[in-house]
Amino acid sequence: MRPQTLAADALDLADLRERIDGALATFLYNPSSRVPTQGRHASKGHDLDRTLAQYVLAPGKRIRPLLCLVGWHAAAGGRQGVGEKAALRLAASLELFHAFALIHDDIMDGSESRRGAPSAHRAFAVRHQDRADAEAFGRNLAVLLGDLALVRCDELLHSAGLTEGQYRVVLPLIDTMRSEVVLGQYLDLRAAGSPRGDTGLALRVVRLKTARYTVERPLHLGAVLAGAGARLIEACSAYALPLGEAFQLRDDVLGVFGDPAVTGKPVAEDLRSGKVTVLMALAVRRATRPQARVLRRFVGDPGLDEEGAAAVRRVLEVTGARETVELMISARYEAAVAALERAPFHPGATVALRHIADGVAIRTA
Amino acid sequence: MRPQTLAADALDLADLRERIDGALATFLYNPSSRVPTQGRHASKGHDLDRTLAQYVLAPGKRIRPLLCLVGWHAAAGGRQGVGEKAALRLAASLELFHAFALIHDDIMDGSESRRGAPSAHRAFAVRHQDRADAEAFGRNLAVLLGDLALVRCDELLHSAGLTEGQYRVVLPLIDTMRSEVVLGQYLDLRAAGSPRGDTGLALRVVRLKTARYTVERPLHLGAVLAGAGARLIEACSAYALPLGEAFQLRDDVLGVFGDPAVTGKPVAEDLRSGKVTVLMALAVRRATRPQARVLRRFVGDPGLDEEGAAAVRRVLEVTGARETVELMISARYEAAVAALERAPFHPGATVALRHIADGVAIRTA
Repeated sequence: MRPQTLAADALDLADLRERIDGALATFLYNPSSRVPTQGRHASKGHDLDRTLAQYVLAPGKRIRPLLCLVGWHAAAGGRQGVGEKAALRLAASLELFHAFALIHDDIMDGSESRRGAPSAHRAFAVRHQDRADAEAFGRNLAVLLGDLALVRCDELLHSAGLTEGQYRVVLPLIDTMRSEVVLGQYLDLRAAGSPRGDTGLALRVVRLKTARYTVERPLHLGAVLAGAGARLIEACSAYALPLGEAFQLRDDVLGVFGDPAVTGKPVAEDLRSGKVTVLMALAVRRATRPQARVLRRFVGDPGLDEEGAAAVRRVLEVTGARETVELMISARYEAAVAALERAPFHPGATVALRHIADGVAIRTA
Repeated sequence: MRPQTLAADALDLADLRERIDGALATFLYNPSSRVPTQGRHASKGHDLDRTLAQYVLAPGKRIRPLLCLVGWHAAAGGRQGVGEKAALRLAASLELFHAFALIHDDIMDGSESRRGAPSAHRAFAVRHQDRADAEAFGRNLAVLLGDLALVRCDELLHSAGLTEGQYRVVLPLIDTMRSEVVLGQYLDLRAAGSPRGDTGLALRVVRLKTARYTVERPLHLGAVLAGAGARLIEACSAYALPLGEAFQLRDDVLGVFGDPAVTGKPVAEDLRSGKVTVLMALAVRRATRPQARVLRRFVGDPGLDEEGAAAVRRVLEVTGARETVELMISARYEAAVAALERAPFHPGATVALRHIADGVAIRTA
């Protein structure tokens, strides 16, 4: 699906990713790069900050900061260079917010691993395994690590050098994004458990938790920073919402059928936690009685083994749920690409967004 | 200790407290009072928001918002009225930050109650007691409720109507305060456990976690909002740091000797968790061998009963640790009051700060 030729003026995504990591590393490892305040600064390379730096700088897709930067370029066009540093810091701050969300979500979902390494609470528990309360202590430190990520996120944002006009459009958008993520996680947490056939609910969670958060809001943030008007913002949404849904639907398929060595997540985890997904909701709706029994028995069972997971996978295949989700992903990918063709973006940004769409739809991790 | 007469121009603290609660209620129960954003707003009186509103509006001292408002009056003086609404919203936002800190701290400390009611994670666990995983589920919802409190705190702050100049002084100060609280809690969490005689460490935790956070930072925030210069800021610190230490030392005494019906916290909780306090560190340093055995046996024991708690209390009395802490509180109260006499504050604010100091030093809850 990747285009064979690259427009000469396309943004170099690998280069942007490197600059995002550079901005994060400078901020996290160098407290003096932060905003000076009246009164002494309490943090001087504290070891919780070091742990946060290691967590954030572990290899990752950086999709949210990338989309923020591409959104900025889409709107800034020829004015590149002016205010680019502020865009980079705003983009990097999204990765710190994401670290906050991941660390706390992993606690809530009881996830053992993340990005191929132990999740934060597991890593802390292992580091303090000599304590009788290692599990609880690890979880407590992870709650605090997530809190610190959010505090540092604001700090990076506030030292991004935004003008007053930029503050006035960026901050409310960030606040909205954050409350969407927290309330989406709440919906998710309340709904998880035994499998249900409510595809409407599943799609609502997808939209709230991922489509806006992962694709639309980062694009909007970059675009409004560059002074985008309503038409450009709408074009961002027309691309972002279908692509964001495709992103989450792909995630759900990978969570059940993906290769753990590539995804970095234990393969049956979504099944064990009874995560609300469109994939599962479709299977529940279409299941025969014996198939429904399999789903009820295994989905949401914390002790699920590989045999049970294989039985669930068979039901997801035989009911055609997996195939339908693949068709849904394709339709959304096509809609996003079609929206791009109509979008009033700077051409370099359009090519980059096409690459990102390809990566989202066909990725394996 | 309360002055018998009240200066005619003194701030009415009860009235300020009511206005703080009013600002919080308006914001929390009325999503339309929040900043409008491009794109739909995800939250419409969500039930997690309702839980947060109930939590935040439960009766409390509101000491941080009060100090913020008094700090504003101290510096604004005759210019009262101009920008007062912004000061009120900034002050109210501190209570939301405090809710975030309390909810997460209670999870980490395993605290069962707060302000005379079950702590957030306990309340959620009880509400969902029909679930097999009620404890974990309650804890997860509380992590999320704390996260929402911080998100809403930023939202209230960003809709306070600050000018660009105010943003530039207020936001870095808030970022510093937040990282002090998180890193102070980290220090506390790492240090808790078996009793130690390290009074230096205990005082460091007091300064980081409480003195700055509870008294100095709120005063500074209000003062810089009103355009205070270096001299006034220093006068705030001269009052705030000793008073903040007195506040925490009083808290530590109440945590062991207070009346649970008044403090709203189970009385032996600090002993059970092995909380780092100056009171305990002094006792450990002065204990005879048999007394040290009592402390080692009971302090930090999750199963501590009333008999064990009584034995620890006797050691705290007999070693004179309690008396020394009372002397430390008095000395700090006197220092704070003396600093007030030299401070270039608006007289109405000075009287109010004197009332607050009296309340902190002699309070029973």
